[in-house]
Amino acid sequence: MDIIRQNLGENSYQILVDEDIIPKAGSLAREYLPNTRQAFVLTNTTVGPLYGQKLVDSLEKAGIQTFIYQMPDGEDHKNFAVLNEVYDALLEAKIERQGSLWALGGGVVGDLGGFAAATYLRGIAFVQVPTSLLAQVDSSVGGKVAVNHPKGKNLIGAFYQPSLVLADLAALNTLPEREWQVGLAEIVKYGVLAGGEIWQLLVNHLPLIKAKDPDVIRKLVVQSIKIKADVVEKDERESGLRMILNLGHTIGHGLEAATGYKVFRHGEAVAIGLVGVARLAARLGRFSQESCQQITSILARLGLPVAVPQSVQRNNLAQEILGHLSRDKKVQKGEVRFVLPVEIGKVEVGTVPQKLLEEIVRELCGEAGK
Amino acid sequence: MDIIRQNLGENSYQILVDEDIIPKAGSLAREYLPNTRQAFVLTNTTVGPLYGQKLVDSLEKAGIQTFIYQMPDGEDHKNFAVLNEVYDALLEAKIERQGSLWALGGGVVGDLGGFAAATYLRGIAFVQVPTSLLAQVDSSVGGKVAVNHPKGKNLIGAFYQPSLVLADLAALNTLPEREWQVGLAEIVKYGVLAGGEIWQLLVNHLPLIKAKDPDVIRKLVVQSIKIKADVVEKDERESGLRMILNLGHTIGHGLEAATGYKVFRHGEAVAIGLVGVARLAARLGRFSQESCQQITSILARLGLPVAVPQSVQRNNLAQEILGHLSRDKKVQKGEVRFVLPVEIGKVEVGTVPQKLLEEIVRELCGEAGK
Repeated sequence: MDIIRQNLGENSYQILVDEDIIPKAGSLAREYLPNTRQAFVLTNTTVGPLYGQKLVDSLEKAGIQTFIYQMPDGEDHKNFAVLNEVYDALLEAKIERQGSLWALGGGVVGDLGGFAAATYLRGIAFVQVPTSLLAQVDSSVGGKVAVNHPKGKNLIGAFYQPSLVLADLAALNTLPEREWQVGLAEIVKYGVLAGGEIWQLLVNHLPLIKAKDPDVIRKLVVQSIKIKADVVEKDERESGLRMILNLGHTIGHGLEAATGYKVFRHGEAVAIGLVGVARLAARLGRFSQESCQQITSILARLGLPVAVPQSVQRNNLAQEILGHLSRDKKVQKGEVRFVLPVEIGKVEVGTVPQKLLEEIVRELCGEAGK
Repeated sequence: MDIIRQNLGENSYQILVDEDIIPKAGSLAREYLPNTRQAFVLTNTTVGPLYGQKLVDSLEKAGIQTFIYQMPDGEDHKNFAVLNEVYDALLEAKIERQGSLWALGGGVVGDLGGFAAATYLRGIAFVQVPTSLLAQVDSSVGGKVAVNHPKGKNLIGAFYQPSLVLADLAALNTLPEREWQVGLAEIVKYGVLAGGEIWQLLVNHLPLIKAKDPDVIRKLVVQSIKIKADVVEKDERESGLRMILNLGHTIGHGLEAATGYKVFRHGEAVAIGLVGVARLAARLGRFSQESCQQITSILARLGLPVAVPQSVQRNNLAQEILGHLSRDKKVQKGEVRFVLPVEIGKVEVGTVPQKLLEEIVRELCGEAGK
């Protein structure tokens, strides 16, 4: 078992990574959450049937009174209506302040479940059991929880750290191909951010990664979590440094919003966004052309989009993305700030000339020169 | 100006108490929240017309872009529907992460506004400008924010500390008589909790208090805030000690719930609850009869109820209160824990025999011997 400690003072917690960790949840709960006597497992209609009973059995066997609730699957359901259903279910189960909420699933279950845990009775213990690659390397660590608002993703949320994270590598075996890819997009992001071992794995072992070699995947997951935990440790509430984790996300979010969150998965939009900021930095003379092409090539070889596919291109898409960028929640004093790679393993934060930004976004949308 | 510092590590803040502090809000914002460029003032339809413009003018004069939003007045509106309207208004005003939310009003505005501030864009700066006595001495300090759920008060909430509290004593001049009384009930609670100067003021200067003598009122407000801040400092998230602030509240909440929140104001229910726990403790031989009678007498002389008035008495009221107690959110392992006075200035936390609890609740409801 790999154990990564997220150091955050009294909000510290452990992230445990291993194959078949779900069946050990009960004994781990006894060890890491000795006071919890009630567990409310939130999952969805896809993951629930696969792993729900295993988790419930393990918790019950450890003497923890356990309830399970399945929400519908998909980003569309990360909303207030479902949140209120979860509150009702928590009350129905009479979960007390000493109880715990276990989010079994991907980012949607983790984000909504975390927000419910943060706000039910002013906060109960929260355990992340991420079953997707994306959730294991990204959303389950760091305490960002949220629901979507009709006007934008994650506009309502909190910083609320889990008490424990259990990343079961065996759960990845049931992951559809597209879900693998979107997780890999975030892993490429970590590679660009941190360089070193994770970048070398991406550069030198793409065939093993594509073949889902268990050892290489474990290394990628553990490295990614370490990089994220390290950044979060230095800036829990995103007052500065943590923003670097948004590498590729600003353009990515704009693209997701402009296409109504219906065309691209988050990781696919991030892949296009990564190409965008790499090109922005290169065009500004702050990043090498070679590294820019290397990033693009790795993403493409992993099967990720590196520009808006022709079938999705349409009039004004670039303009709409630019409009969304100006309303991004990381806007400060009216200016959009970008995380820009300056070399593999090093990024900087700053604004970019609006004209260059427009040019790059048009290129990504296949509207260059139009 | 009286300045009380709430020490909570990086969540520390100042509570400023003075006459006519609202017109100074802008310059105080410059001093205490130097980074804020946007202020969203949340108020209600009663307080807004009285003080809203003064606050807006002061903030605007300090160069802060200011918006004002009035919610309907009353506990009935501390719900998700209004919360969502506030989110919409925050988005409409394009409040950014560096913006601030100012809650101008009583406990409802402060609790709902605080929850909105805690969750909008994962948290923006929050300033409490309490205009009721109850909010000044209680709800504006300590970071408990919440909205009500159809199944109970404050079931959805967070611990989210304000960045600044401005308690304007001049605002109390427009307070209706009943609002004074409910604030005084909490002040009596602090007297029982802490003894010392505040208790002496209550024992020796009731006529001055009833005449709203500005000097005595200021002392009561400042003392109350100091007592609360001291307890919160030792236990920000109510894992133990902070529970003592619920003296009188457990029975009080049960009474409010059983009467649909329509009969008693919070402070009135707390007054009856204070009599209840004083009697519980006295009957257990842990508190003197004399002190129990002294508390009852002070509350009665302040015009507060010390039992359920005959006009409100009805069959099964006691039984319903007892039912609500068993569902209280402070229930642990299925047992209701009470804060019991053992002498003036000293309380203890513990469970009480169910039979005695039933007896006392029946007495308070005028159902003794029935």
